[in-house]
Amino acid sequence: MIGPVRIVGTGLIGTSLGLALRALGVPVQLSDPQPAAVALAQALGAGQIVGTPEVAEGAEGRSESPTIVVVAAPPDVVGAVVAQELARWPLAVVTDVASVKSAPLRQVRQLSTAHRRYVGGHPLAGRERSGAAAAQADLFMGRPWVLTPADDVDPQAVAMVRELVESVGAIVHLMAPEQHDEAVAVVSHMPQVAASLVAAQLQRLSPAAAALSGQGVRDVTRIAASDPELWTQILAANSESMHRTLVAVRADLDDMIAALATLESQPNQDNERARHTIRDLVTAGNVGRRRIPGKHGSAPTAYGTVSVMVPDQPGELARLLRDIGAAGVNIEDLRLEHSEGRPMGLAQVDVVPDATEILLKALDRRGWSVHN
Amino acid sequence: MIGPVRIVGTGLIGTSLGLALRALGVPVQLSDPQPAAVALAQALGAGQIVGTPEVAEGAEGRSESPTIVVVAAPPDVVGAVVAQELARWPLAVVTDVASVKSAPLRQVRQLSTAHRRYVGGHPLAGRERSGAAAAQADLFMGRPWVLTPADDVDPQAVAMVRELVESVGAIVHLMAPEQHDEAVAVVSHMPQVAASLVAAQLQRLSPAAAALSGQGVRDVTRIAASDPELWTQILAANSESMHRTLVAVRADLDDMIAALATLESQPNQDNERARHTIRDLVTAGNVGRRRIPGKHGSAPTAYGTVSVMVPDQPGELARLLRDIGAAGVNIEDLRLEHSEGRPMGLAQVDVVPDATEILLKALDRRGWSVHN
Repeated sequence: MIGPVRIVGTGLIGTSLGLALRALGVPVQLSDPQPAAVALAQALGAGQIVGTPEVAEGAEGRSESPTIVVVAAPPDVVGAVVAQELARWPLAVVTDVASVKSAPLRQVRQLSTAHRRYVGGHPLAGRERSGAAAAQADLFMGRPWVLTPADDVDPQAVAMVRELVESVGAIVHLMAPEQHDEAVAVVSHMPQVAASLVAAQLQRLSPAAAALSGQGVRDVTRIAASDPELWTQILAANSESMHRTLVAVRADLDDMIAALATLESQPNQDNERARHTIRDLVTAGNVGRRRIPGKHGSAPTAYGTVSVMVPDQPGELARLLRDIGAAGVNIEDLRLEHSEGRPMGLAQVDVVPDATEILLKALDRRGWSVHN
Repeated sequence: MIGPVRIVGTGLIGTSLGLALRALGVPVQLSDPQPAAVALAQALGAGQIVGTPEVAEGAEGRSESPTIVVVAAPPDVVGAVVAQELARWPLAVVTDVASVKSAPLRQVRQLSTAHRRYVGGHPLAGRERSGAAAAQADLFMGRPWVLTPADDVDPQAVAMVRELVESVGAIVHLMAPEQHDEAVAVVSHMPQVAASLVAAQLQRLSPAAAALSGQGVRDVTRIAASDPELWTQILAANSESMHRTLVAVRADLDDMIAALATLESQPNQDNERARHTIRDLVTAGNVGRRRIPGKHGSAPTAYGTVSVMVPDQPGELARLLRDIGAAGVNIEDLRLEHSEGRPMGLAQVDVVPDATEILLKALDRRGWSVHN
């Protein structure tokens, strides 16, 4: 089994990971530059405080050396902290959880010759709340966790980080760092900026106007409650992809504004061209929205669902994910339902319709109790 | 009691209103230019088909004349249809449900001398799905329903429409038409455009990138699945407020793009000013987000909740809303829980903390079974 796992940085992600690993019986060592943060994480049961940034290297006994270090530090410093940890633990694999991957990798390569033991990672499992207090052991369940190993990374290091990630129920996606940064610019960082732009306009609302807020504006602005300092670092670290993406958004916005200006200045005319511009943009949104996969989107594909009984024991869910992967089936969505006091959980695995039968047979052959 | 109510236009809103009124025992007459649409609405139980646009005025017997006509027609034609209905039913009050209010009122005044019987209305109860098939009897429950009577409207007409609106569980907000249009530009139409802009960018995603979609982008783009033709008409009819609002959004977006361009071109510098710009925008979003009232927002105010047993009989919920209004207490949010086979529902009414005691006493005095 994996471990001991050392987690450096006990915010939302670090603490949630600690909780998930402790639930599996994995020894977890916690560290954070802020004593209050790490004390809270330990009190929540996310692991044991071991060492502080001030403790000299090698202060802990050999037997307690971590096999994996997870750096959950802010994007601005993550590269430097990864390099420090690589130097401090010469036998450990080091990964991180930052929302950007190219800039940290560049930093690690500049600062460390041990970068073959570094595997960049990014769990897509944020919440609009941050900090240890918002941590949840099931935060990663069924969520994508991108790994972005550089070409020259030790394959054994990648395998170890993959095992860690799958043990907490996340689904591994392998990508190049640049490919990751371009993808999250569109699916994560740009929506964040849009939510902030919309929410910023709400500042000037009268109470009578604010009272008309419906589910639409609530949904659009939910993530606008996110941490400004964290998001400044993320956007700054992904400035190249973000700049390109927002310029494309502005081109569409300019078209919309020009169409509205025409309609405003000529209220009694047909203005079919202006209306066409607006209709095209809303239609493009319809099409783009359907690109989001899984049950929460409006994807035209109806997924097949396979239900699997999962013994409530450490490692069983990871074994299920491995067996699904071995069957060559891609997971579109995953939900886990636990019943209080029962020794089993029910995992509901969504897959493309064609894969349903394949998965049912493959899991049945491997001894899982399945039905659809 | 109100009724017969004539509903012209059996899309999502018209059909939902019919279902809600029929559940209260109110006679409902349905009409729609599309025979298939009105047939579906009748089959769903939203009312009876009476007449068609082709039937000559007065074709129905006097006894069946509606007391209220609700025009649920698209924004482009709503003014003309209201004027027609005012002419056709000389004793009826006419209201509408369009998402814009100034332009239809101008049209009605141009086309009809009977505009003192017209009370503009707008239920804020849309869904991303449209059409009769998506209709729900409880669509308006606890939702705002704006009424925008012009200064010269018959007060009795306003009272009748208010009774109709409250009978289906909606909460009346009185506003001037221009005030309404400016408010919905910010809380509804601008978020819709933002969702479409974000979703439009998703069109170019590879499947590998789309697979990284998380709850954030799903929430931001949920309403991007809305009907392009309907939204073209809404945005065109509210072009003045929308133009102003989107120009303000573009100014913030320009600042963000300039900051990212600086960070991109000078990756090794501090760029504190550029970072400041980004941080300020995200912070402004934090502040604006808190302006959204009610349980779904992140409003700093914790509301008090008063629970009221409501007999499961037509008109009881409307009586409760009237009694709450008479107590001078503003409803922040309302949820209704029904238990299968029980003669009572439980209404949970959220109010500002100071009003909790006032409301408890006022409702108790009026014979309601209350607790908090």
